[in-house]
Amino acid sequence: MKEERISLKHGEGTRQAYELIQDVFLTRIKNPALEELADAASVDSLAYTCDSFTVSPIFFPASDIGKLSVCGTVNDLCVSAAVPLYLSLAVIIEEGFLKKDLERIVDSIGREARNSRVKIVTGDFKVVEKGKVDKIFISTSGIGKKIPKRSSAFRNIQHKDKIIVTGSIGEHGISVMLARNKIFDFDITSDCQGLADVVIPLWERFPAIRFMRDPTRGGIASTFNEIYLGSKMGVKIIEENVPVRKDLHTACEILGIDPYYLACEGRAIIVVSPKAASEVLRFLKKYSPAAAIIGECDRNIKGVMMKTIAGGERILDFSHSFNLPRIC
Amino acid sequence: MKEERISLKHGEGTRQAYELIQDVFLTRIKNPALEELADAASVDSLAYTCDSFTVSPIFFPASDIGKLSVCGTVNDLCVSAAVPLYLSLAVIIEEGFLKKDLERIVDSIGREARNSRVKIVTGDFKVVEKGKVDKIFISTSGIGKKIPKRSSAFRNIQHKDKIIVTGSIGEHGISVMLARNKIFDFDITSDCQGLADVVIPLWERFPAIRFMRDPTRGGIASTFNEIYLGSKMGVKIIEENVPVRKDLHTACEILGIDPYYLACEGRAIIVVSPKAASEVLRFLKKYSPAAAIIGECDRNIKGVMMKTIAGGERILDFSHSFNLPRIC
Repeated sequence: MKEERISLKHGEGTRQAYELIQDVFLTRIKNPALEELADAASVDSLAYTCDSFTVSPIFFPASDIGKLSVCGTVNDLCVSAAVPLYLSLAVIIEEGFLKKDLERIVDSIGREARNSRVKIVTGDFKVVEKGKVDKIFISTSGIGKKIPKRSSAFRNIQHKDKIIVTGSIGEHGISVMLARNKIFDFDITSDCQGLADVVIPLWERFPAIRFMRDPTRGGIASTFNEIYLGSKMGVKIIEENVPVRKDLHTACEILGIDPYYLACEGRAIIVVSPKAASEVLRFLKKYSPAAAIIGECDRNIKGVMMKTIAGGERILDFSHSFNLPRIC
Repeated sequence: MKEERISLKHGEGTRQAYELIQDVFLTRIKNPALEELADAASVDSLAYTCDSFTVSPIFFPASDIGKLSVCGTVNDLCVSAAVPLYLSLAVIIEEGFLKKDLERIVDSIGREARNSRVKIVTGDFKVVEKGKVDKIFISTSGIGKKIPKRSSAFRNIQHKDKIIVTGSIGEHGISVMLARNKIFDFDITSDCQGLADVVIPLWERFPAIRFMRDPTRGGIASTFNEIYLGSKMGVKIIEENVPVRKDLHTACEILGIDPYYLACEGRAIIVVSPKAASEVLRFLKKYSPAAAIIGECDRNIKGVMMKTIAGGERILDFSHSFNLPRIC
């Protein structure tokens, strides 16, 4: 009998990833906070989250692994209705790594921590032999203070709630891909950014927000599928309303990929009551003109369905095929 | 001009590691909590810490990378006078890793979390391509509740304070080395264990404890040097009193290494007022018969000095030479 092995698919916001987490991890380290599979765990009055970053290349248009490692964790706290306060930083580096590249990355970490008003209060630094890690991997964790009376939870989601995206999608994913394949000449930079300035005021102002998640690995399609699995509420998306930059659309066509599966690192998906949706959108557009209402939750739909521009319907499943390893 | 590169020495509890942290990290992400360079940061009523684990081999006598990744973070909280509560777990795995090995590691994580009464509440899982990471790296962070009116801080340390070690030293380091070099047949298992059951009652009972640290990378010699750098208080060690297992001593002689630089993963160094030292030791010995008073702090000594069994004196500096990469 062939022994089962972990494949790249298990790490990618795919159905296999979802199932592996359930099967290998949740069965062995079960507890109510973890089982939520939220972007951040809710413990006492705190939100707590962690992430590893293995992005390749480590420098990419408008960003790098350092900025990403701060934004990723900050954003997980933000979408969990928590004000980010403290971060931990664990760095694993390959022997022979250039000191000036490390300095550039730590500069970027420091800059983004100041931007996002978080303090990096604890850290760890390890060096492994040449060939035992690909350049540098960074793990961050973060603690935030929960905003009273607000929560992002699947169980909050109701029939007919509206779905908002805070900006145009897929730019992080495509910028990393283009940085790998330098034969294409597109000027698309990563959307990697901290969301605190946009998202925290939203939480404070609008009790009607029921759920938020940042669509990183696996893109918005994976986030919608997680919503369906977590809330049992189907998702209906209007393709026409989804903000996609034209050049990104062209790049996707050339590369034969689908923007809905591309990672964002500075966007949030927001589920909000139908009544408050247009007010939330108006508020959002001050920060991000591309924000849009792109669909709604519907208990009569099984899974995620997209009304296409051509007028048809298309199922947006978890990606079964190979996505992009090491996009974040 | 040759560009400076990071070497294995920079990750090893050496002077170079200490200086790199100061030079590259502290200058760029400075804040009072981080500058303490404590095992855990003190934020509000919480202690917060993080660690990465890259140990090779991933399974070694009596333990594995999973147990180690829980104990390491739990112990950093314990020695910081905090009751460990919550852990985060970020796993980076190599494509092709055996699923049953991952299950064995997560079993071990679950078991140790229950032993140490911590909950793993948040996690991340990433898979990278074959050859881009050596099997599996794990990063954990942890949150603990600070014990009121207790703290482990360099500034607490006073002239003539006694130094206690909670058990025999170096067993983790040597067991990992022996697991790598199977030509030697010693039956030495890792001391890897959670310290909560021993250390938390100590903190609660003895206000006279001024400082605690677990001597991991770089062994007790590095911890003493950190005490000197942090407190400006010299350290005097009586070699004869340091608990070293006989077989470990023999193994060290064969391998040409020094037990004082070998990592422990289930021991603590305790600095305590001279008056309370023997009472603390008596209490400790109930849990760990090998516990011993091994020296004292002395403001008239520069650095770390060991009175050898032979009757001479020896400087125990940070290791300048190459230690053991990937011991934890």
